[in-house]
Amino acid sequence: MNSFGIVFRVTLFGESHGPAIGVIIDGCPPGIGVKSDDFMTDLKRRQSGSIGTTKRKEPDLPEILSGVFNGVTTGAPVTLITRNSDKISSDYDEFKAVPRPGHADFVSQVKHSGFSDMRGSGHFSGRITWGLVAAGVIAKKIAGLADISAKLISAGGSEDIEKAIDEAIALNDTIGGIIECKINNPPMAIGEPFFYSFESAVSHLIFSIPAIKGIEFGSGFASAAMKGSEHNDPFINSHGLTLRNNAGGINGGITNGNEIIFRIVVKPTSSTGVDQTTFNFKSGEMTTLKVKGRHDTCIALRMPVIVESAAAIAMADLILVDRGIHGKRKSDIK
Amino acid sequence: MNSFGIVFRVTLFGESHGPAIGVIIDGCPPGIGVKSDDFMTDLKRRQSGSIGTTKRKEPDLPEILSGVFNGVTTGAPVTLITRNSDKISSDYDEFKAVPRPGHADFVSQVKHSGFSDMRGSGHFSGRITWGLVAAGVIAKKIAGLADISAKLISAGGSEDIEKAIDEAIALNDTIGGIIECKINNPPMAIGEPFFYSFESAVSHLIFSIPAIKGIEFGSGFASAAMKGSEHNDPFINSHGLTLRNNAGGINGGITNGNEIIFRIVVKPTSSTGVDQTTFNFKSGEMTTLKVKGRHDTCIALRMPVIVESAAAIAMADLILVDRGIHGKRKSDIK
Amino acid sequence: MNSFGIVFRVTLFGESHGPAIGVIIDGCPPGIGVKSDDFMTDLKRRQSGSIGTTKRKEPDLPEILSGVFNGVTTGAPVTLITRNSDKISSDYDEFKAVPRPGHADFVSQVKHSGFSDMRGSGHFSGRITWGLVAAGVIAKKIAGLADISAKLISAGGSEDIEKAIDEAIALNDTIGGIIECKINNPPMAIGEPFFYSFESAVSHLIFSIPAIKGIEFGSGFASAAMKGSEHNDPFINSHGLTLRNNAGGINGGITNGNEIIFRIVVKPTSSTGVDQTTFNFKSGEMTTLKVKGRHDTCIALRMPVIVESAAAIAMADLILVDRGIHGKRKSDIK
Amino acid sequence: MNSFGIVFRVTLFGESHGPAIGVIIDGCPPGIGVKSDDFMTDLKRRQSGSIGTTKRKEPDLPEILSGVFNGVTTGAPVTLITRNSDKISSDYDEFKAVPRPGHADFVSQVKHSGFSDMRGSGHFSGRITWGLVAAGVIAKKIAGLADISAKLISAGGSEDIEKAIDEAIALNDTIGGIIECKINNPPMAIGEPFFYSFESAVSHLIFSIPAIKGIEFGSGFASAAMKGSEHNDPFINSHGLTLRNNAGGINGGITNGNEIIFRIVVKPTSSTGVDQTTFNFKSGEMTTLKVKGRHDTCIALRMPVIVESAAAIAMADLILVDRGIHGKRKSDIK
Repeated sequence: MNSFGIVFRVTLFGESHGPAIGVIIDGCPPGIGVKSDDFMTDLKRRQSGSIGTTKRKEPDLPEILSGVFNGVTTGAPVTLITRNSDKISSDYDEFKAVPRPGHADFVSQVKHSGFSDMRGSGHFSGRITWGLVAAGVIAKKIAGLADISAKLISAGGSEDIEKAIDEAIALNDTIGGIIECKINNPPMAIGEPFFYSFESAVSHLIFSIPAIKGIEFGSGFASAAMKGSEHNDPFINSHGLTLRNNAGGINGGITNGNEIIFRIVVKPTSSTGVDQTTFNFKSGEMTTLKVKGRHDTCIALRMPVIVESAAAIAMADLILVDRGIHGKRKSDIK
Repeated sequence: MNSFGIVFRVTLFGESHGPAIGVIIDGCPPGIGVKSDDFMTDLKRRQSGSIGTTKRKEPDLPEILSGVFNGVTTGAPVTLITRNSDKISSDYDEFKAVPRPGHADFVSQVKHSGFSDMRGSGHFSGRITWGLVAAGVIAKKIAGLADISAKLISAGGSEDIEKAIDEAIALNDTIGGIIECKINNPPMAIGEPFFYSFESAVSHLIFSIPAIKGIEFGSGFASAAMKGSEHNDPFINSHGLTLRNNAGGINGGITNGNEIIFRIVVKPTSSTGVDQTTFNFKSGEMTTLKVKGRHDTCIALRMPVIVESAAAIAMADLILVDRGIHGKRKSDIK
Repeated sequence: MNSFGIVFRVTLFGESHGPAIGVIIDGCPPGIGVKSDDFMTDLKRRQSGSIGTTKRKEPDLPEILSGVFNGVTTGAPVTLITRNSDKISSDYDEFKAVPRPGHADFVSQVKHSGFSDMRGSGHFSGRITWGLVAAGVIAKKIAGLADISAKLISAGGSEDIEKAIDEAIALNDTIGGIIECKINNPPMAIGEPFFYSFESAVSHLIFSIPAIKGIEFGSGFASAAMKGSEHNDPFINSHGLTLRNNAGGINGGITNGNEIIFRIVVKPTSSTGVDQTTFNFKSGEMTTLKVKGRHDTCIALRMPVIVESAAAIAMADLILVDRGIHGKRKSDIK
Repeated sequence: MNSFGIVFRVTLFGESHGPAIGVIIDGCPPGIGVKSDDFMTDLKRRQSGSIGTTKRKEPDLPEILSGVFNGVTTGAPVTLITRNSDKISSDYDEFKAVPRPGHADFVSQVKHSGFSDMRGSGHFSGRITWGLVAAGVIAKKIAGLADISAKLISAGGSEDIEKAIDEAIALNDTIGGIIECKINNPPMAIGEPFFYSFESAVSHLIFSIPAIKGIEFGSGFASAAMKGSEHNDPFINSHGLTLRNNAGGINGGITNGNEIIFRIVVKPTSSTGVDQTTFNFKSGEMTTLKVKGRHDTCIALRMPVIVESAAAIAMADLILVDRGIHGKRKSDIK
């Protein structure tokens, strides 16, 4: 189940230490300008190297295998890959026998009857999100004038994010964070009741990303303590502009033209340097594990661009479904 | 986009004040015992009448139109409908002209170019969840030994739920709440990377339900303030049992055999008796609206059974997909 | 797997002798005029009564359960049902024990582990095509100016169709036939490579219909004996009009603007009055069967309208997918 | 729409003269042995070089990019690519301006607004079937004991196929042919009513392949001239074995355990050396075209393995869907 989308359809493939990872974007309209450089800004944002992220250096250069000719999309599926060049598989040899707490090591072995490639977490690796970001670059072009911007607003429970990371590094431990995504000038009236609401599409994609534990739209969990009269957003003009935005730009699963806002929570990186109790698959005996190797102190640092990409992909598909069903969208009603 | 599921596929239809609402359950295995009475417990739980919910009395008797013969499913699609008998459409006449803040009135008109049936909120009505609950009854039978239980754990920000509702009624206002869902004895190893993780399936369904603003799994938003060494769940035996359960029973999008836990937030009912600012579609002029008619003070009261149903439907589909790809699930690995 | 379509999605349900049969049409654009009378012409065409078809009288009046308000579609799923009123189940009691040659009796029992409702062939009955025709009525409105017309061009190997039927009746036997479908003024450039070619969509639907044994487009099986220079259709103007039409209006799976032509073959009705060898499921012993009851001598007589409906549904979905991906279709290229 | 399948899902990508072509196989069960050599036999069968097929030499070596580890599938998507090494694009430069009769040149330009990569027919090239054959190799392993065998039974209307090809070469013209596919020892009871019948799945895939004009199952078009008493296949034992096989191994869209038989017709290669009338897109003026370059006299020669692959893919998906809904298939009913 490595595809998402009804009309604009994204398929991810690859393992962390296999020959390559990649993405296919099917249902992509022809005539969209695409060149390798377009991907650089977003792919760099998810790359390692900054404080709190792993030292592993990934060149991440995309090769365009199909769907683009003379610098524009052709209407055929767009395929992008990147080779895995910086692999040290010996780091991971033991995890097949001794599953790391908080990782997919255990469930992957059970689900795939022991056949998974778990080198570098294989297909469960965060590295697979490379394709999501690459697809997001194209999806953003379809989303048109919408301005999507996600940022890390807290880490380890603190808004002083650098300090929180330094403290975690000192403890040889890891931390999570909260990311807020805002979409200005969003497309009006996208989202398909009953089962393909805007929130359904976005959350479906967001919870595909490793390490996400929650999502909330608009006033989110704070809504539980509000009165209806406080929570409802009064209209201030006849184009649907509202005085406040507890709805997060969505009513009944459909965008209402106001800014879209959602927040997600990223758990602390599972690969912590602290001792943990686990067991050995072969012997069945309990044991202790300290994860070595190169790991992110705060994986959330890399994730704003991934969240943006997920939002863009959801929007692109909803836009194409909507256009298909309803024809050219009218800007307002008479 | 009124269907959900890859193999076990649920389709909802109907409008609040149309002739009938209903559901089709396709991909339902043959040989499952189904009789009208099976639906009564769950359908009553979502019915109106209790404190804080509307006085509208819905008989909600399901008629089985297809897919069941001699009291068992046949393998053909199961269709269930219920007639809409208690309709007072005049209550709603004005909302087509004057959209209610917090409702789908505005977006529905824009999206469907003014052709929506907005009587009783039409296809956007919470009444459409009748079919979700009916499908959930069958899905629970497929989920087998899994024991799914959701309950309202706070309302209006308080754990004294009755008191919170009484206070809201006194103010002629409304409140929301938080529902926690636990699944004991869940199926092991369901969830399909990359895009059909357990959380993706559940959240996709949950955000189809009107009034949901957020969802979190396991330690959820609290994870953001935890260290990795605190958040990871150490194993305590070789079958994957963990000492604590911050994961909420899921790693890498796949169930790990521990209890599944998630929480959702329900916004306050949008139909509050307090004055709100809105506008008139025809004149374009601003106006004030006070919603009359029968409405729930706290719609969250009705929703635990709906949340359970969504969880059951997600599980049923993931079980059938998993069984198709992997055959009979082995209980452990050698 | 009782649904077809990516955006315009048709779901069929019901059994021949169950309470009702019906159809849901999801992804239907809002604003399409729909009233009960619209269905009468096409539903009558598939109804019994004419020479060579069963005497069973079906009123077939459609009840609109959802998706239509004030005589137009709303954008919500359209649900249509009709009650099964004229059921004589005792006719069919023996087929559960003794499967009829040429019928689905045997495979249905094996597939559904004996739980199928086989009264009147249940969900395998030709009666289920009622919903296909009803959906076709709406699909034809989406196909716009396309003029779809199917007719029976031979029966029992003869072009004198009435005579062929009379002869078969005299023998207490049954015959099949060939139906040709032409679509004038078809939408240009619909069909989605690689896997959703125009022919793929049409044949997928056609082979869902009971009793179909083959389909060919344009010059079809006769192409095998032609030279390339004979088979290719030379262009006669720069809008793509061709001198002849061996392509049947399709190149590379995409409509080319010329008339679309395809033919299908319908096998002789399986329920023949002649003795046939079969066996008893319980005893395992061989036995002889003569099918009694009311049956069509030539089921192909009823099928032109069903074929038209399948073509219309395929076109409607391809049109909506195309519009979604490509925007408003330009009539020509500069 | 470059994917096919519900659970076992095949996605094709690439253009004839782009960097590479390939295929993703998602929903592939883990634990299936796969090595590069497994693909050689089938890939060679579709390769050029034999009499009547083009001289273009394609090495066609598959590179496995993902989903296989230590020689077995892992449960993650399997990605296979091959580089396009032998490209002479100048052959095709003129077809963008002057569409070849019988080709997709015209519709492709209209559909994709002139953005298609038409070098070597781009994504419309028969070369794209490389991925179908590669996926078929894996699908055949899932189809288990089923023995799938397709062969060319006539070419240019003659059963002396070599002679027919020699004659066509002498005329500088091209011919088509008829391919028959038989599946011995097929899986019992696969096929999902109403819309995913065995024939629907197979024909959907078959009509994705370029140059196919028709398909028939069992007695096919000859059924139209048969009586019901002749056409029905009498049972000869209580396991469903039949005396003859007009059904082609399928009743009610479900396999009945007897040999599956279907035939397809391939049109003559469109690229004939004979003069043809066409037009110039830019000037709008009519012109004459003689296709030069390397082309197959009889493309049907290469297609038996492609037809087998399509059949295997359809079976693999139907098997996994059936297993999901029905669990382990019982061999008979008690």
